[in-house]
Amino acid sequence: MPIITLTTDFGIKDPLVAAVKGRIYSELSDAVVVDLSHEVSPFDIAEAAFILKSAYKDFPKETIHIVGVDTLINPLKKPIAAYIDEHYFIGSDNGILSLICADVAPRELVEITIPQAQAETVFPTRDIFVPVACHLARGGKLSVVGQRLKQFKELSLLKPVIKENKTINGTVIYIDNYGNVITNISEKIFDQIGKKRNARVWFRNQEFTEIYTNYNQIVKDFEREEENYGKGLALFGSSGFLEIAIYKSNPQTVGAASTLYGLKKGDLVNVEFD
Amino acid sequence: MPIITLTTDFGIKDPLVAAVKGRIYSELSDAVVVDLSHEVSPFDIAEAAFILKSAYKDFPKETIHIVGVDTLINPLKKPIAAYIDEHYFIGSDNGILSLICADVAPRELVEITIPQAQAETVFPTRDIFVPVACHLARGGKLSVVGQRLKQFKELSLLKPVIKENKTINGTVIYIDNYGNVITNISEKIFDQIGKKRNARVWFRNQEFTEIYTNYNQIVKDFEREEENYGKGLALFGSSGFLEIAIYKSNPQTVGAASTLYGLKKGDLVNVEFD
Amino acid sequence: MPIITLTTDFGIKDPLVAAVKGRIYSELSDAVVVDLSHEVSPFDIAEAAFILKSAYKDFPKETIHIVGVDTLINPLKKPIAAYIDEHYFIGSDNGILSLICADVAPRELVEITIPQAQAETVFPTRDIFVPVACHLARGGKLSVVGQRLKQFKELSLLKPVIKENKTINGTVIYIDNYGNVITNISEKIFDQIGKKRNARVWFRNQEFTEIYTNYNQIVKDFEREEENYGKGLALFGSSGFLEIAIYKSNPQTVGAASTLYGLKKGDLVNVEFD
Repeated sequence: MPIITLTTDFGIKDPLVAAVKGRIYSELSDAVVVDLSHEVSPFDIAEAAFILKSAYKDFPKETIHIVGVDTLINPLKKPIAAYIDEHYFIGSDNGILSLICADVAPRELVEITIPQAQAETVFPTRDIFVPVACHLARGGKLSVVGQRLKQFKELSLLKPVIKENKTINGTVIYIDNYGNVITNISEKIFDQIGKKRNARVWFRNQEFTEIYTNYNQIVKDFEREEENYGKGLALFGSSGFLEIAIYKSNPQTVGAASTLYGLKKGDLVNVEFD
Repeated sequence: MPIITLTTDFGIKDPLVAAVKGRIYSELSDAVVVDLSHEVSPFDIAEAAFILKSAYKDFPKETIHIVGVDTLINPLKKPIAAYIDEHYFIGSDNGILSLICADVAPRELVEITIPQAQAETVFPTRDIFVPVACHLARGGKLSVVGQRLKQFKELSLLKPVIKENKTINGTVIYIDNYGNVITNISEKIFDQIGKKRNARVWFRNQEFTEIYTNYNQIVKDFEREEENYGKGLALFGSSGFLEIAIYKSNPQTVGAASTLYGLKKGDLVNVEFD
Repeated sequence: MPIITLTTDFGIKDPLVAAVKGRIYSELSDAVVVDLSHEVSPFDIAEAAFILKSAYKDFPKETIHIVGVDTLINPLKKPIAAYIDEHYFIGSDNGILSLICADVAPRELVEITIPQAQAETVFPTRDIFVPVACHLARGGKLSVVGQRLKQFKELSLLKPVIKENKTINGTVIYIDNYGNVITNISEKIFDQIGKKRNARVWFRNQEFTEIYTNYNQIVKDFEREEENYGKGLALFGSSGFLEIAIYKSNPQTVGAASTLYGLKKGDLVNVEFD
């Protein structure tokens, strides 16, 4: 039985997540449902895309990912489903698929046309996405639940700007649980533009001339690891994007990159190559 | 194997939720346990009732719902279990069942009398409710774990006041993840009293003369959807209760109904019919 | 199939927890994964130990517990796995095992030496702990994934100080969801030192001369239970440690022991016997 994951902005207090799960189990008693995240900021499709993009590849092929963010259906925003990179994605045509799957063309893409999608609903994730997910989980085909669509809505929100093959102007797209600041500059873009030249990372009045690929690289002598607590660094972390971080940070106590450097979502972070 | 859901005020940091799940799996290795919500405000049975009432019908029949809120046993507050509306509920006789199942009479109702209920415990959810839930999940009968009870404790907490068949005085019972303000005025009561007359909704110095059944109804032209961001509305949402909402709100950033109108739990919201 | 539990400081918004689960399901499609807690404060191994210590015994024997807190591998902090008290623990040799299992000697203890542990990774929980957990869940042996280790790192962090067989100087190790203040003074130590003598508990300018084993003991007359709301008490709660609590507290509204007494992690709480 394929896994069904849920990425929403419902939060975990409200009854919405449970309602969605209840419906899934009502259709498929042996379903395997995994919470990807329910703490996406309300209506924030960039955050939802970042979170899902970072985690979906760790799931088995044929996993079905429901994206319950900004889903209210209107004439310009239809429910869609796609088969991309050997995973299924079900959500709203609000641009989110272009953010999740920027590099990979969908092998199949449909506008969902099951009867539930024609009725007015205040809860499309439960009433439209769940039946589609269960259909796919039972081995059903995308073509049965929708009609082929040529393309999904494009958003350039997460793309950094490249200037003269020398500068990358990125923006902060996510602040993580440790207060680390994650930009939209991927290691792939960095390598493509940089071609192994030296780089400096700068933002506001801060500058880093070294870029790490592991937190440990900042520590020269592990007997004195503590001396590095609170040190700032630029690195490519587990997300595959350039991060500004503080060694052993805690936003609630000693502070973190977001609080110490005053960086928030949408702020500029730049890379300049020699 | 029936599903066991958990609704508690334990929060998700503390070890309590895991202890309950560990005990369930120790008794029933193939149990299916679903978190309904663990973020009920401490001891707030009205919140717990609203959350469970909103979600339980989406689960399959015969699902077993454990309610771990305000559970300490004392001579006036015994552990009970009930079969209502084809679902099982296990909790404390603190009035919560009267809030969840106001419209439906229980088909069976027992005071739990298993030996664990006689012993002193600081953790009734784990020590009393779990064995009862596992007994039911194995197909056991309610009559084996308790003795018949004529009625559970009644609370009128969630009922609005109706005046002269013309006015409904409701109160705010819940603020959701988007900052929407949910009242205790159900669509059913509204229709019964209103009999299709025009209605206005008012509270503090605010008034709405239109009541929607879908967020989208506020938008006249989807090319210009953005113009509606931040607009207030009164609607019957997925909860089935009258809500005061802001189109595309976010309590952390642009604000929401709760913050913009200064509404909090217990505040008055009124409906007046022509 | 044994259960795999997860205790981390990842939080539930970021994609990390889902990435770990995705990897587990990729290896073991019928895995049973239970969230123990993901809200451990960043890098706080004392909190992680307290949470796991309080809950692990409620899980079936042979359960596999992954501890994803402070895991970055360096020459002084290797990944380890142990079989203790009939449960498996996988984590980092950062002292956490000495806090969880202070009273029980490990029956097996290895330094993890699978190839993934040799490679540099920014995400040891996913890349090293998951394959070890799946190996154990399939019935594999510890000796296959690591080489025997004589002892793990010791931390005395959670141990209270005992003076002249008369006084116990404890510290606050955890504040729970209700704002209750939990100390490192276990009921076992209390009984050992106290030998049934009368005790008083004091901290700052507060003193309690009664120590309860159940919240209800504070209430003399349940018809007037409300009169006890807000009353402070010292008790041995479900954690097995001495707690300072407020009857029916709520840190967000009426206040709780942590806020009313101004107690925070690391503060002193003392017991003195006659």
